[in-house]
Amino acid sequence: MSWGTIATWRMANEGVEKASTILEENGTAGDAVEKLINTVEAYPYYKSVGYGGLPNEEGIVQMDAAFMNGDTLAQGAVGAIENVMHAVSVARALSHEHCNSFRVGKGATKFASLHGFEMTNMLTKRAKKRWQKRCKEIEQQNLNPYDGHDTVGAITLDKNNSMAAATSTSGLFMKKDGRVGDSPLSGSGFYVDSKVGGAAATGLGEDIMKGCLSYEIVRRMRDGELPQDACDHAVYPFIEDLKKRYGKAGEFSLVAMNNKGEWGVATNVEFTFCVATDKQKPVILMANPIDNMKTKIEPVSQEWLDAYEKRIHAPIE
Amino acid sequence: MSWGTIATWRMANEGVEKASTILEENGTAGDAVEKLINTVEAYPYYKSVGYGGLPNEEGIVQMDAAFMNGDTLAQGAVGAIENVMHAVSVARALSHEHCNSFRVGKGATKFASLHGFEMTNMLTKRAKKRWQKRCKEIEQQNLNPYDGHDTVGAITLDKNNSMAAATSTSGLFMKKDGRVGDSPLSGSGFYVDSKVGGAAATGLGEDIMKGCLSYEIVRRMRDGELPQDACDHAVYPFIEDLKKRYGKAGEFSLVAMNNKGEWGVATNVEFTFCVATDKQKPVILMANPIDNMKTKIEPVSQEWLDAYEKRIHAPIE
Repeated sequence: MSWGTIATWRMANEGVEKASTILEENGTAGDAVEKLINTVEAYPYYKSVGYGGLPNEEGIVQMDAAFMNGDTLAQGAVGAIENVMHAVSVARALSHEHCNSFRVGKGATKFASLHGFEMTNMLTKRAKKRWQKRCKEIEQQNLNPYDGHDTVGAITLDKNNSMAAATSTSGLFMKKDGRVGDSPLSGSGFYVDSKVGGAAATGLGEDIMKGCLSYEIVRRMRDGELPQDACDHAVYPFIEDLKKRYGKAGEFSLVAMNNKGEWGVATNVEFTFCVATDKQKPVILMANPIDNMKTKIEPVSQEWLDAYEKRIHAPIE
Repeated sequence: MSWGTIATWRMANEGVEKASTILEENGTAGDAVEKLINTVEAYPYYKSVGYGGLPNEEGIVQMDAAFMNGDTLAQGAVGAIENVMHAVSVARALSHEHCNSFRVGKGATKFASLHGFEMTNMLTKRAKKRWQKRCKEIEQQNLNPYDGHDTVGAITLDKNNSMAAATSTSGLFMKKDGRVGDSPLSGSGFYVDSKVGGAAATGLGEDIMKGCLSYEIVRRMRDGELPQDACDHAVYPFIEDLKKRYGKAGEFSLVAMNNKGEWGVATNVEFTFCVATDKQKPVILMANPIDNMKTKIEPVSQEWLDAYEKRIHAPIE
């Protein structure tokens, strides 16, 4: 029986390993995707998700997350939630509610607190240093404040042919109070239907929303396209269209998997991602756009991985 | 040159009249849709939008709204915003930002305040009375707290072939603090592409999100379907699917218009809506589902309109 998972960025690697063990041992797609995302949320050196995530312009870490059950289409989501260790677990709890399943701001934080979720100050010393440094740079050099917006987004398929999708992010570094990106938005940041497949996004949420790209990829797979074709056809023409109509397009990347464990990726920037299936041991791969219409996928070099390790642990001057 | 507008519910009627004057006099789709929604927001007897809208379970009026430019695909949205007279105007202002264009909670309210939008206590005496009555009923009779969730959603087409979409709502009566529905969510509550057409939704947001219904309708129009076919094909099979997979489907309704001014509607409940085009004077119509797969559209009777007027002004006991 086939199973599989695909997730955005190198940072998902350890989570993908854990999820693949769960899926191999007949665990559910929902449990696997939550464990995958939780692993990323808990690691303090990933600066765009969960603990250690970079704060908004006021120095507060506000997180967005979502969970979707591909069997029932039930969804839960949180936006601009604070002080919560595992935003995706709050989203999953909300997915069991028929009403009030998307909560934002203090209402989201209140729900997490009332339901016994682990609360903590999510601003690490390291993240605070980065924020202080950035504030100074912006003041001194009149820089554009925004930088970095890497969501962990993942799709899982279990041996019972159930699928799930989930996302988690601290969002755009230096964002405004209460800014919500695509990650908690159905059809933009994520979408999954166990009868078809799922997709998840990372990048500039404001532009991903303009195309409802996760839904569009699933819709194309529903019409019979393979995941890679669905990604290419949904993403690249949209980017060209957006450049013409809106004048520019931010950086973004999408991953997709269908209910056979086949997968695909599209991106307009150098993009690492992680995959594991019953036929493929957990692996980190790299994607790049070719001629703005197709995706080149290749293994990540050891040099790249070494430089990454060094970069994420480098002292903040 | 053709122009047109379609909007959800009888409450949109006065707004549709104003919008049609703007469109007839060569105004923009964006100005027309904002005026349409503003008119509904300002009227205190409409209990699900703007001033006079019903509060959340804590007695606070929290509003969701969105604005989308069909030429550029630019969007602005607010969720759980408080004390703002015209939430849709705040959303429109946010649509000019490339980053931070979707703001929620106190961050959204702060943006409105900083940018000089009219701030006021949105809880009318009448809405407070209703809330107090409902709290008592729930306590005494152990009732389901939720009731009423009518969004004003509208699409406009101007003589220059530009289109816009917008929504505004105080959301589910007695909702939890920070609950956000479909209204500010791209592809769920609204979507518009001037090259194709637009759609907007009203009803139980949590279920509308599960199908990204506004995007799906626009997508079908892009593939050549007429608005009425696109509405029927997107909405009715989804409702049947949701009943099977999720066990139930809330009440919801969608309106759509293409860039020729042709329009369509689908609903699983008795649903009034308003239309005006260069060929059709402003009119209130009623839609009902037939055999769960098609939509029956007929004029609204004078009896219905009289009963409506009486109902919205009736004293709260």
